[in-house]
Amino acid sequence: MPRCLVARRLHFNAAHRLHNPTQSDQWNRDTFGPCNNPHFHGHNYELDVIVEGEIDAETGYVIDVGVLKRMVEETVIQQLDHRNLNLEVPWFRDHIPSAENIAVFIWHLIEPRIPRGRLQRIRLWETPRNYVDYEGG
Amino acid sequence: MPRCLVARRLHFNAAHRLHNPTQSDQWNRDTFGPCNNPHFHGHNYELDVIVEGEIDAETGYVIDVGVLKRMVEETVIQQLDHRNLNLEVPWFRDHIPSAENIAVFIWHLIEPRIPRGRLQRIRLWETPRNYVDYEGG
Amino acid sequence: MPRCLVARRLHFNAAHRLHNPTQSDQWNRDTFGPCNNPHFHGHNYELDVIVEGEIDAETGYVIDVGVLKRMVEETVIQQLDHRNLNLEVPWFRDHIPSAENIAVFIWHLIEPRIPRGRLQRIRLWETPRNYVDYEGG
Amino acid sequence: MPRCLVARRLHFNAAHRLHNPTQSDQWNRDTFGPCNNPHFHGHNYELDVIVEGEIDAETGYVIDVGVLKRMVEETVIQQLDHRNLNLEVPWFRDHIPSAENIAVFIWHLIEPRIPRGRLQRIRLWETPRNYVDYEGG
Amino acid sequence: MPRCLVARRLHFNAAHRLHNPTQSDQWNRDTFGPCNNPHFHGHNYELDVIVEGEIDAETGYVIDVGVLKRMVEETVIQQLDHRNLNLEVPWFRDHIPSAENIAVFIWHLIEPRIPRGRLQRIRLWETPRNYVDYEGG
Amino acid sequence: MPRCLVARRLHFNAAHRLHNPTQSDQWNRDTFGPCNNPHFHGHNYELDVIVEGEIDAETGYVIDVGVLKRMVEETVIQQLDHRNLNLEVPWFRDHIPSAENIAVFIWHLIEPRIPRGRLQRIRLWETPRNYVDYEGG
Repeated sequence: MPRCLVARRLHFNAAHRLHNPTQSDQWNRDTFGPCNNPHFHGHNYELDVIVEGEIDAETGYVIDVGVLKRMVEETVIQQLDHRNLNLEVPWFRDHIPSAENIAVFIWHLIEPRIPRGRLQRIRLWETPRNYVDYEGG
Repeated sequence: MPRCLVARRLHFNAAHRLHNPTQSDQWNRDTFGPCNNPHFHGHNYELDVIVEGEIDAETGYVIDVGVLKRMVEETVIQQLDHRNLNLEVPWFRDHIPSAENIAVFIWHLIEPRIPRGRLQRIRLWETPRNYVDYEGG
Repeated sequence: MPRCLVARRLHFNAAHRLHNPTQSDQWNRDTFGPCNNPHFHGHNYELDVIVEGEIDAETGYVIDVGVLKRMVEETVIQQLDHRNLNLEVPWFRDHIPSAENIAVFIWHLIEPRIPRGRLQRIRLWETPRNYVDYEGG
Repeated sequence: MPRCLVARRLHFNAAHRLHNPTQSDQWNRDTFGPCNNPHFHGHNYELDVIVEGEIDAETGYVIDVGVLKRMVEETVIQQLDHRNLNLEVPWFRDHIPSAENIAVFIWHLIEPRIPRGRLQRIRLWETPRNYVDYEGG
Repeated sequence: MPRCLVARRLHFNAAHRLHNPTQSDQWNRDTFGPCNNPHFHGHNYELDVIVEGEIDAETGYVIDVGVLKRMVEETVIQQLDHRNLNLEVPWFRDHIPSAENIAVFIWHLIEPRIPRGRLQRIRLWETPRNYVDYEGG
Repeated sequence: MPRCLVARRLHFNAAHRLHNPTQSDQWNRDTFGPCNNPHFHGHNYELDVIVEGEIDAETGYVIDVGVLKRMVEETVIQQLDHRNLNLEVPWFRDHIPSAENIAVFIWHLIEPRIPRGRLQRIRLWETPRNYVDYEGG
């Protein structure tokens, strides 16, 4: 059977702040500018989850995108939506919540739970004009 | 000369929290749900500023949208972008930073500074799937 | 308190066919062209529900868009999503399921159930390049 | 029968230059900045044509958007698409091709040719971030 | 000469139903949920056709996207637009019209007819929030 | 550290004309159709600049997209925005300003100036319905 990619977009919004606690406040302000604001700012994130695999002859599906959507909602969205990433998501105590690191975090949450095929890519839009792609590894 | 509307879209992102300090914590949680999160969440806001007026015969413009854009950047965007609305924008000490109230706030900042024509409407997108329109009054 | 408009976008997809059973097949083919296909075709509809009202001083809301969304999902989306409008929605036995008539149908479903403010407008996108606005009356 | 609005989006692209030949070169540079470039620049224009009328009981249509689209293609798009507005469209010898004036020009081309209902509004997007609305009069 | 990818988006809408006639009705309802509706539902499909090749020194083109568009309209759009995929497109008698299989079908229609370069990818959007990529093989 | 892609979208608009001066006028009209208009036409271009690299442990960034944006504005946008590509950008004296060639030109401007990681891809949208990808080489 042929192989293809299947993508499903989901949404969450969150507050965050870019800050490296091992560096001085001055270094953080110089490096992150307004993204270092100690009172936080926020984004509407759009998350594209992209799965690669063989088309199943019985269903015509690589993966049922309804099943994929519900898994990502339970695994990712419930944990990140309407949250402060720095204060409420323990993984970001040790990782700066840049779009790059959020994509890596989501990959590790989702990748072991893909029910069919394999996770090929995470695309995370931080604004309508910038995104990050993570392919694992 | 004919009259028309001219619209210009701008962008900012911010953290906020919906909370009414004159009510109990229980009332706030029941009323605002996850939007009441004490650690804040955030959005990418898209702001459409819409001006009505007569087309100037000399320029073909109702208003120069470059001039309009720079005025809104100086008046609104510098004050709200990458900010925590509750903690850093004094007007929101007394007003809940709902999309409705943010639109009213922006109207009052911009309306007296429109250099030509009159402000007809503010459209504020809180996410790609919901917006608020405010026409003054 | 100031008044404003609040809009929330929802999604459904459906099959339909434009056909007037009181006219001849030839009239229907001439009038509706490929939209008259007896085997149906379909669309992803985007539905904007727009409510007008006074901003509540306690909440900063005209209406809680989460409440609005759930009401529209229960009232409209469950009845239309993944449906054949001609065969499965009784109102369209007597009304051609054009975008215009679908908007009127949705208005009558929603309008009496708006919990705060009043329904100002339904905007129904049939494709990304055409929509219909209905304001009642 | 109920009344509603029906909108159809069309596309054209064109070169133009903002220049008022009754004024000095210095005035033009000061007023129009880079839009005054004597070598022209250009845009992808998106044009929304919005018609208001009663829903026809026989068809469920205010207007057949396929008929509307073909009329606008013949009347407007063939005249403006892939053109230099200043040099190739005679009306712009006497009118600066600002978005405002292009909208007025399109209104006068289309308004007498609307086959059913009445033209309610022209919305002309010059970029994805600015548009003009013209309602006649 | 350098090589690059060129993409052109086209549109069609269609009705379909996900149903495997070699399985029981119960299996089909359990597997496909509302997508198994015997009365069909439908979508606006957006189709991105992506061609890879060397830039021609005489034209600056990998491929003339106008020529590509007309070929896809004649080969794909006329066969699928405003159709019921299950009942009117013979290939889907033996293949479930999932987005995955529609992409494979379109690939086989287009791939031998690419006039210059080679078909690199088909991206088929079933809704604004999910798509399938097929690269052949 | 993990590696990922980071993308930033920028905007410019320009006039251009497709014309090969080594060929006859007839050949040019036959080959380029309305794009050969001697009076030029124009587009709103959207430019996605995509950088690949390792996530920096100190910052969480592959690259600071604010730094990337300012470099592209200075290097590309100031040279192309509101310009006539044929008459005002010397490189296009010897290269037809097709989307393909504009992407190659932008690659060579940007590639040596990427401050961290490496340029992976240029995506240039000529209209909302067609784009070109260039990956160097």
